[in-house]
Amino acid sequence: MRWLWSRISGHEPADSDEIEPETPAPPAELPPSELSEPALTALRSAVGERNVLAEHAARLGRTGGLAYLDLLRRRLDAPLALPDAVITPADPVQVQEVLEVCRKHDIAVVPFGGGTSVVGGVSALRGDKSAVVALDLVRLDKLVDVDPVSRLAVLQAGMRGPAAERLLAGHGLTLGHVPQSFERATIGGFVATRSAGQASAGYGRFDDMVQGLRVATPAGEWRLGCAPASAAGPDLRQLVCGSEGVLGVITEATVRVRPAPTERHYIGLVLDGWQRGIDAVRALAQKPALADVTRLSDVDETDAGLALSVSLRTRLLRRYLRTRSVSEPCLLVLGWEDTSVRSLSARRSVAMRVLRRFAPVSLGSGAGRAWLRGRFAGPRQRDALIAAGVCVETLETATRWSALPALADSVRCALVSALSTKRARPLVLCHISHAYETGASLYFTVLTPRSPRDAIGQWQRAKRAASDAIAAAGATITHHHAIGTDHRPWLAAELGERGLGVLRAVKQSVDPTGILNPGKLI
Amino acid sequence: MRWLWSRISGHEPADSDEIEPETPAPPAELPPSELSEPALTALRSAVGERNVLAEHAARLGRTGGLAYLDLLRRRLDAPLALPDAVITPADPVQVQEVLEVCRKHDIAVVPFGGGTSVVGGVSALRGDKSAVVALDLVRLDKLVDVDPVSRLAVLQAGMRGPAAERLLAGHGLTLGHVPQSFERATIGGFVATRSAGQASAGYGRFDDMVQGLRVATPAGEWRLGCAPASAAGPDLRQLVCGSEGVLGVITEATVRVRPAPTERHYIGLVLDGWQRGIDAVRALAQKPALADVTRLSDVDETDAGLALSVSLRTRLLRRYLRTRSVSEPCLLVLGWEDTSVRSLSARRSVAMRVLRRFAPVSLGSGAGRAWLRGRFAGPRQRDALIAAGVCVETLETATRWSALPALADSVRCALVSALSTKRARPLVLCHISHAYETGASLYFTVLTPRSPRDAIGQWQRAKRAASDAIAAAGATITHHHAIGTDHRPWLAAELGERGLGVLRAVKQSVDPTGILNPGKLI
Repeated sequence: MRWLWSRISGHEPADSDEIEPETPAPPAELPPSELSEPALTALRSAVGERNVLAEHAARLGRTGGLAYLDLLRRRLDAPLALPDAVITPADPVQVQEVLEVCRKHDIAVVPFGGGTSVVGGVSALRGDKSAVVALDLVRLDKLVDVDPVSRLAVLQAGMRGPAAERLLAGHGLTLGHVPQSFERATIGGFVATRSAGQASAGYGRFDDMVQGLRVATPAGEWRLGCAPASAAGPDLRQLVCGSEGVLGVITEATVRVRPAPTERHYIGLVLDGWQRGIDAVRALAQKPALADVTRLSDVDETDAGLALSVSLRTRLLRRYLRTRSVSEPCLLVLGWEDTSVRSLSARRSVAMRVLRRFAPVSLGSGAGRAWLRGRFAGPRQRDALIAAGVCVETLETATRWSALPALADSVRCALVSALSTKRARPLVLCHISHAYETGASLYFTVLTPRSPRDAIGQWQRAKRAASDAIAAAGATITHHHAIGTDHRPWLAAELGERGLGVLRAVKQSVDPTGILNPGKLI
Repeated sequence: MRWLWSRISGHEPADSDEIEPETPAPPAELPPSELSEPALTALRSAVGERNVLAEHAARLGRTGGLAYLDLLRRRLDAPLALPDAVITPADPVQVQEVLEVCRKHDIAVVPFGGGTSVVGGVSALRGDKSAVVALDLVRLDKLVDVDPVSRLAVLQAGMRGPAAERLLAGHGLTLGHVPQSFERATIGGFVATRSAGQASAGYGRFDDMVQGLRVATPAGEWRLGCAPASAAGPDLRQLVCGSEGVLGVITEATVRVRPAPTERHYIGLVLDGWQRGIDAVRALAQKPALADVTRLSDVDETDAGLALSVSLRTRLLRRYLRTRSVSEPCLLVLGWEDTSVRSLSARRSVAMRVLRRFAPVSLGSGAGRAWLRGRFAGPRQRDALIAAGVCVETLETATRWSALPALADSVRCALVSALSTKRARPLVLCHISHAYETGASLYFTVLTPRSPRDAIGQWQRAKRAASDAIAAAGATITHHHAIGTDHRPWLAAELGERGLGVLRAVKQSVDPTGILNPGKLI
């Protein structure tokens, strides 16, 4: 922590108090629920009295997601977008009934899964409606069907990552979908946000895995998908993937599963220089020889990782890298998962052969396993940093390979320029975690001392600068965090007037009165 | 031919006349063009006088596609859906201008590429419009841009398969997209119909390859796609893929390309029994170890292939298979394409190891090369068969692995039952040409003596029976032939009321007056 503080503020903390956690503000006095009695009665009749939660704790638990600004607003006692009640239906049929009640009573509905959105996707905005409820899918947690021959499983939308893996493991199967939000996020959320997991190079993005969907909409239930591939018109499943609760409430997904791996091999390598690292990952992606997890850190992220994670051995490691003439170390983590040693070794051999011309220095499997152990720790580390007075947030994008280095530079410059002050210069770390034949994602982590006077404005300005840089480069405003409220200002540039018009037309068709997740996406 | 005739009619032809080509009917007297003078003037001003073709030959050349019934109607002098003119714009801007003229003058527009639709997708139907033009994209034949680092190329929509490969070969690149229509079909058609090529297991379906699109719509130009993957809302590219000219005219596509292969290895294997063959292909798909071309024929198709294609060596081959105890031979063609011998051999080894437990009998690379030589010959063979009085057509579907054998049976039964007469029993051949982790396609070829009294009704009844069987099984009505006019009656069952409603809403948004390809898809 001292290391980080000295890096981002340019000086050692005066004393240890300066990096001690602040005391969070006490919870705000909540406004009363605005649900009318007839609406409450109808909702209770749809899902049962005890599944309409109007008490403060329940409402406070569904006020928003886990973006830095969400956390900050809660700490700062800033106004929160609060649902008037939390509804927990038992199954897809009850979800459909809740939508009918809400349509009739003009109530906005915010579908709620793990609540891990970092773009405002689950903020309880009511738009022009009379009230707003959080539709918490927590009880839709069943494994409905498994077809091991076809490698398909039907999962209800409220099932969280660990539960899905536990239930599938009973059949020797896995989803293999492990975003950083894995521990809390749900199947429905994975679909609704086009989630990409850390091992998506091997297991595919979630939108690749979806073969069928069951969706509740105010216009009636919608079932999609009946084959692994089809030419029966446009692929409407890809319209529901990424629809962020705006076009319907996903209640079930039929997803491709795989035999659970019995072998795992993770290694860390160091490449000399960011451009060489990009070239190496591109070579893997285009061979194709990506490991299931393929993740390249830039020089600053590698440096921070060395300082923060393997501190005991850091000095020795730096010396070792110098003897190997590595002046700008970039960490490349590769992880393979397989059902046989032979198959894993064969894939690893192909990858290592591709990498040979990039002169990698192996840190062995210890560095790989270290990454694996800490893979879900990011959010918890962030909580500690926020408590210590740090402005810390992430953002991400993707573009084609030929445009990637320039995009990384311009986003980094935008962030540094927006956040630098006389006393402090932000730390901007970057990695590539998702690579494709034609391009890759860029994921930035930003750390800087929190502005004592305008903490919210500080990040809003930085986010705007970075987003403008992304849009100016013609890259996507988000590779896997979705649009929510936060990316809406940049969606028009990406989809154009025609694309937005099409989305609005689809919205009008399935949700004519606009009750579904107002203020998100479109 | 005698072999075939004896198989499908149950007896040898009485004399050789019976299988001689009929004389095609003379071309019909064409109705006059119904384009008004102001419309003609406006169209001429948009694209230039000589790019508005109103003469008989041009109109007759764009009356429809290449379905059996299209060919039959031309032979039988049946009424044809004729465009009132053929428009050949020079570039995307002129396409947009043509749409504006047609919107203003209430003229239906049928986008026309290679004209190889087998589902009525390019029939010049006018719907409720005052006239109809074929918008032939033949002049949009440029390679606009190549980005070899990102493996992306921008191709205009009217470029045919061979021209695309020739131009890309100049950069050492390939699309690798080889449907049977390759020689005539175009890039725009590949996108609009979600085309799948013979080597799609290796190179991907065309909808997998599309990264960006430029589309002319009556509501204005629409550009889509800026990254290899994105979470910026629904993937609208997958709404344009498969839109069959109903939602816009695709003018350019940014597609993923690959280094042109220098090595090719094709082999033929025989497996004993259809179920064993299915299990073998599934094992390859799920390893994953599919060859770039992976194609399994059922017993009847294998038998017909032995009889028709390798007739000289047939007897020897049958004897050889008997000595190997193969009683129900199913031909499996595997083809690998690669840029290095080493890589190709490694992939082949993995596949052959997977296949070992299915006891394949190798026919060597001769059988593989024979398939490769004849891969585009289907349509020409069909022309000869039609001329000889045979009813010959294909249809296809896809479903999950666990449902595949039953689906194959029920479609085969439906066809046999619909086409059997006292004197003849149809030959129904089936193969799997596209396999995925979760399922595969089934492709049927049907041959039977043509009904002398009701040739059109004969096939319509058979097609309806097969399509009903597909819908009853919950499979897709088409894996890669698209909807056009012919599959429309079954689309509602597949997409449901909600799905159709969404498509109509999108249509209304981009084509409010409904000029684009009336009567197709929706």
